[in-house]
Amino acid sequence: MNDLAGYVEELGKRARRAAGELVTLDGVAKVAALRRIAQAIRDGRDSLLSANAKDVATAQESKLAQALIERLKLNDKRIAAMADSVDQIAAQTDPVGQTIEGYVRPNGLRIEKRRVPLGVVLFFYESRPNVTSDAAALCLKSGNAVILRGGKEAFHSNKAIVDLIHSALSTQDSALADAVQLVESTDRALVPLILKLDKYIDLVIPRGGESLIRAVVSESTIPVLKHFTGNCHIYIDSEIAGMDEQIRNVCVNAKTSYPGGAVCNAVEHLLVHESVAKSLVPQICADLAGKNVEIVGDDAARKLYPKAGTATDADWDTEYLAFKVGVKIVSSIDEAINHINTHGSHHTDAILSSSTRNIDRFVQRVDSASVMVNASTRFADGGEYGLGAEIGISTDKLHARGPMGATDLTTYKWIVTGNGHVR
Amino acid sequence: MNDLAGYVEELGKRARRAAGELVTLDGVAKVAALRRIAQAIRDGRDSLLSANAKDVATAQESKLAQALIERLKLNDKRIAAMADSVDQIAAQTDPVGQTIEGYVRPNGLRIEKRRVPLGVVLFFYESRPNVTSDAAALCLKSGNAVILRGGKEAFHSNKAIVDLIHSALSTQDSALADAVQLVESTDRALVPLILKLDKYIDLVIPRGGESLIRAVVSESTIPVLKHFTGNCHIYIDSEIAGMDEQIRNVCVNAKTSYPGGAVCNAVEHLLVHESVAKSLVPQICADLAGKNVEIVGDDAARKLYPKAGTATDADWDTEYLAFKVGVKIVSSIDEAINHINTHGSHHTDAILSSSTRNIDRFVQRVDSASVMVNASTRFADGGEYGLGAEIGISTDKLHARGPMGATDLTTYKWIVTGNGHVR
Repeated sequence: MNDLAGYVEELGKRARRAAGELVTLDGVAKVAALRRIAQAIRDGRDSLLSANAKDVATAQESKLAQALIERLKLNDKRIAAMADSVDQIAAQTDPVGQTIEGYVRPNGLRIEKRRVPLGVVLFFYESRPNVTSDAAALCLKSGNAVILRGGKEAFHSNKAIVDLIHSALSTQDSALADAVQLVESTDRALVPLILKLDKYIDLVIPRGGESLIRAVVSESTIPVLKHFTGNCHIYIDSEIAGMDEQIRNVCVNAKTSYPGGAVCNAVEHLLVHESVAKSLVPQICADLAGKNVEIVGDDAARKLYPKAGTATDADWDTEYLAFKVGVKIVSSIDEAINHINTHGSHHTDAILSSSTRNIDRFVQRVDSASVMVNASTRFADGGEYGLGAEIGISTDKLHARGPMGATDLTTYKWIVTGNGHVR
Repeated sequence: MNDLAGYVEELGKRARRAAGELVTLDGVAKVAALRRIAQAIRDGRDSLLSANAKDVATAQESKLAQALIERLKLNDKRIAAMADSVDQIAAQTDPVGQTIEGYVRPNGLRIEKRRVPLGVVLFFYESRPNVTSDAAALCLKSGNAVILRGGKEAFHSNKAIVDLIHSALSTQDSALADAVQLVESTDRALVPLILKLDKYIDLVIPRGGESLIRAVVSESTIPVLKHFTGNCHIYIDSEIAGMDEQIRNVCVNAKTSYPGGAVCNAVEHLLVHESVAKSLVPQICADLAGKNVEIVGDDAARKLYPKAGTATDADWDTEYLAFKVGVKIVSSIDEAINHINTHGSHHTDAILSSSTRNIDRFVQRVDSASVMVNASTRFADGGEYGLGAEIGISTDKLHARGPMGATDLTTYKWIVTGNGHVR
């Protein structure tokens, strides 16, 4: 235990020191470092595949679910995609150094609000190895040091990736090698210890299941950016003339376009205005059933589609993360808005409508990170928003909301320049 | 206790409901409401003075420190200033509805990042009554509902101010009256209860002593924006040709311009480069001593100014909040930077120098909310930065850093508009 405390303290100190160097690194140097990392990943194919084979073998022995083993597996295509993603992050606009605002006060003081790195980011995540290289690249691009703690199932793969990153970074500056550190202990006792290092670490981002995230929030004295659940809705408005086919497509896409529906931006509940329910609900439900989606509904929905199961009160608060959807008939747009604000998770909610008035009302009143207008909820994604690789999605309201890219890993500094000014 | 739990639950619910209305209020309506509040404060002079007299009498009976009684007192001038401040906030640019970013993706999806109110703000503060009207006005301007909990010493004054605000708001819309609520119980048992209302409240801002703030942070499940201490530094560089008088003025101003030095942006420690210390340290120390400032120093500083006391290790970590200063001689700019990043509070630190190279190095490496260049630390203030009235100063790095104005009480929403887009 003492060793563990000493180990995490050392991780924190090294990261803080590296962060002190990273703030002085210019954009050209960061791009060069990222390009070397991408090349190291390509050149390191053999070591990555053999490390990954160990993880996959262990996973198969311990009877890990097949879907998880699939997520864990590396192959040539996935290694190339990892390297390409690092190159894409290298090519992004550098957020550091941007003047967010700048002006001169009447007394001649020059005020500048300048974007700077946060410092040190602690990142918890689960079993996909590509998250390791994406997170490291996003943190480097934004001038931050990062401490990575991936799932133990991917330990050897993650270690091999970080070794390649170190080989790419150390050709330049040895202090920079500590800019990316992997937690090499899989001991769970380490978690509460590292979450108390607020003197070294500026931000924790936990990516994974809700129980992991709640555990991090309750233990951490470091600010946490989090994403609990994605209980996303589509509201089908009364004003939808000529939109039937579009609506059916969007509903099917929002529920079924990700394998197994196991993704936070899949739709979980459909709210249908009573004036259009009669024709649409049977069609949409049949479409979804045809894709093997289980359907539950309130009484009014079940009258229109009797094969639906009965939705319980708990259904409306549930993120299924599966091929299952709840259907509810509402008598007004305000009932839909209130339902979403009460039962939703403030992640992503959509309106399908041709009425600008109803769209405006929905957009203004629905208190969610992303509000979709005549588009699938599945677009709530950093890549789709053009942020490049995303470090996560926030359902918090402070600092960053919705998909987070490199810019969301920065803060700012006020720089006030005078000429001997006194107050 | 049950009643207390019911009471805070009711405060939260009402605030959330009011927040739902506030998001739909346009700028003209908010300006009109704020102007009515300013007028109500002017017209309410008599009720304010008589309520304030009760607080002052109680404070005198309970032998409150004279400085605190002075802060508590209202008079015609202070009432006029309160009303003027509300009018100034009314006149500010409305942050709500601003498009922070907007673009069209290659697939035709329109992406907009639009500024929206946070929702509900809980605000803890101490005894100055004008904070009540400032905080209420800033929250209204930014479209937020606010729950105010002021110091018990100012209870009658705060109640009178909020009564006037209610009279001004209720002429317009009764739901809006709940946009500003005062916690009317002074029971301390209420604090942990209200800090658990994360389902209704989006942000807590505690303004006051460090113990209040630490208590809020440890109890709260709601995100907190905070400001612990202001251990501010001035570093006097080796390159200062012709700047002696300016430097002496800035040092005296930074330490003594606020009565008693009891303000977070006063300087606490001077770091002087050894190459200029010999001539400057005796002068600066004599200037400060002439203003009744107590001086402690390290050995090198005491050699140059023998009347200084001996600084202990603890001194370097201390915010005196008094007419006291610590002086340390450093042998390089990097020693100064490391000292500030290690012992400072990341609030406000200044460099006095004529070297652009040294200024750049200091600005880049000092990890503080505000970095002053050839200006007094005392400028770290929302008013001086042109933000209008400030809701507080943040030494956090997430969301808002340094002085916070109305814009810092907002978040954003992604609005994604398609035409039946599927992914």
